Amino acid sequence: MNGKETIYFKNHPKILGAGSIVGKYESDGPLAEYFDKCIEDGRNGEDTWEQAESKFHNIALGFALGKANLGMSDLQCILSGDLLNQCVASSFAWRDMGVPFLGLYGACSTFAEGLTIASMLVDSDHLDNAAVSVSSHFCTAERQYRNPLAYGSQRPPTAQRTVTGAGSVIVAKGCEKHPQTVCATLGAVVDSGINDANNMGAAMAPAAYETLKKHFENTNAKPSDFDLIATGDLGEVGRKILIEFFSRDGVELGDNYIDCGCEMFDIHRQDVHSGASGCACLATVFSGYIMSGLLSKKWNRILIAGTGSLQSPLTIQQKETIPGVCHAVEIISGE
Amino acid sequence: MNGKETIYFKNHPKILGAGSIVGKYESDGPLAEYFDKCIEDGRNGEDTWEQAESKFHNIALGFALGKANLGMSDLQCILSGDLLNQCVASSFAWRDMGVPFLGLYGACSTFAEGLTIASMLVDSDHLDNAAVSVSSHFCTAERQYRNPLAYGSQRPPTAQRTVTGAGSVIVAKGCEKHPQTVCATLGAVVDSGINDANNMGAAMAPAAYETLKKHFENTNAKPSDFDLIATGDLGEVGRKILIEFFSRDGVELGDNYIDCGCEMFDIHRQDVHSGASGCACLATVFSGYIMSGLLSKKWNRILIAGTGSLQSPLTIQQKETIPGVCHAVEIISGE
Repeated sequence: MNGKETIYFKNHPKILGAGSIVGKYESDGPLAEYFDKCIEDGRNGEDTWEQAESKFHNIALGFALGKANLGMSDLQCILSGDLLNQCVASSFAWRDMGVPFLGLYGACSTFAEGLTIASMLVDSDHLDNAAVSVSSHFCTAERQYRNPLAYGSQRPPTAQRTVTGAGSVIVAKGCEKHPQTVCATLGAVVDSGINDANNMGAAMAPAAYETLKKHFENTNAKPSDFDLIATGDLGEVGRKILIEFFSRDGVELGDNYIDCGCEMFDIHRQDVHSGASGCACLATVFSGYIMSGLLSKKWNRILIAGTGSLQSPLTIQQKETIPGVCHAVEIISGE
Repeated sequence: MNGKETIYFKNHPKILGAGSIVGKYESDGPLAEYFDKCIEDGRNGEDTWEQAESKFHNIALGFALGKANLGMSDLQCILSGDLLNQCVASSFAWRDMGVPFLGLYGACSTFAEGLTIASMLVDSDHLDNAAVSVSSHFCTAERQYRNPLAYGSQRPPTAQRTVTGAGSVIVAKGCEKHPQTVCATLGAVVDSGINDANNMGAAMAPAAYETLKKHFENTNAKPSDFDLIATGDLGEVGRKILIEFFSRDGVELGDNYIDCGCEMFDIHRQDVHSGASGCACLATVFSGYIMSGLLSKKWNRILIAGTGSLQSPLTIQQKETIPGVCHAVEIISGE
């Protein structure tokens, strides 16, 4: 491939605004102050958890549009995805909005996938702007992937808790003061033979390693060149594996490396086992915490890596192993 | 939106090759001679239908690459999707291939969505080439969306039969002799209140109407300007609704209009009710029949419209209505 996995955005598409909404558990975590909206009830006034998850998209996008000084009718395209079967949280969210919709499925890598595609389309002038909006919900995900919540089934220490929430960003042309995407490395599907659906961190870490390694090689960078490197949702288990993999190459992922799945909750106090997971993990942590740091110039050059675990309940039943994927996007703060 | 739904590809990305594989029922239909491979057994030598569906991608892409005179390692990106929960037919197909993977979910609009995105990315030079690969399988879809096949449940006359197969195309720079994409109109999510999951044609027809109408308006074209207009899988019911909708506007969809869902099977002889459906319907009919007509110059200017029905079994259980989406791509034959 000779470096062709890395795509450069010569016009540096701008992130004009970002919005986020999270659930009660996330609101009780250390990042609560960074989210635009924290809700108490997982149904958020809707009849079903699924309807609530769809509504999260509308709410998060509303904040993003407001900050970008745009209205819904200004949007040229929405790239959106979630974890539900047939991605219904996102497709139902954009019913009758009149805005073109491109549905994505990259499991928990969807936010980085969407940000990459949106950046390419705005960079090339095919679109003036595009929204990326990604959601997940603990209650919709548990019953779909594992057991009905009412079972109260016990989960092993390697398991992670799906983030309830949604994060949206607006990618567009704009002035240099905004955070901007510089380049992205697209990931291939990597399967290291993990077959435990309660250990997705281990299933995704090899994909994260491959993509980050290629990003460093292709852009001639080293981890310490970044003010922040954030993987999506490897959790405690996956984060340690990633650090170990780089360590074997003599490369140190230092204090500038975080995993959003380890940041979202206070792991010891909140009883979330290996940390947070879900499409909305990177989407909300980016739209809240990371955007805040970019806007305040706490960080000037960062790398986010969305990590996705590509199994389904059916593939687990069929004794298949779990493939992973990871896409990385390099972002700089504005001037 | 003022015409901004339509995206123009100024460099006319070329379709260097297309490959298709279909199942037994499709092989017994009127288009059989156009497909690269017709199989007898739905498992095609694999242990499960799902594994067979994954393999379809590899086989269809193999034909497409061969015709494009490329190897797998020449590919810069694969955009791929299917109908299975968590899109596992496609993500499992590309395990350990080392080629960047972007997962899409647009239900049966996925092929048109992928062709549109691939065309933008190649047009802009962000990618030298990209494959689009889309699959569905009657046996995997029936048990996931409806009932286990062994039930032998009866279906109403409005129901359609999911196509078993996969279609892949290679979009790349190339010389003018190849078929090429000219522009595309991105569709929004349209919900007309249909709630019968056995009548997806009716659920998708309004979205097809909206997108095609915008395409004609934005490009200042009329249906008779095209040698062929092909919707994806409206079936007999949806096709008639679409013709009726345009007829009310005084616009005639003439003999140049076909629906791939009505072409795939001999509806009367093969007992398929309203026709064919599924992601692979447009993907295989395009990769086989339509590409053949473009290469032979039978048709010089065509419009394909991928139509997707965005429900899930859960949303049907929850009494939600069925949203539809449609993306249209205009293609010309080479010189």
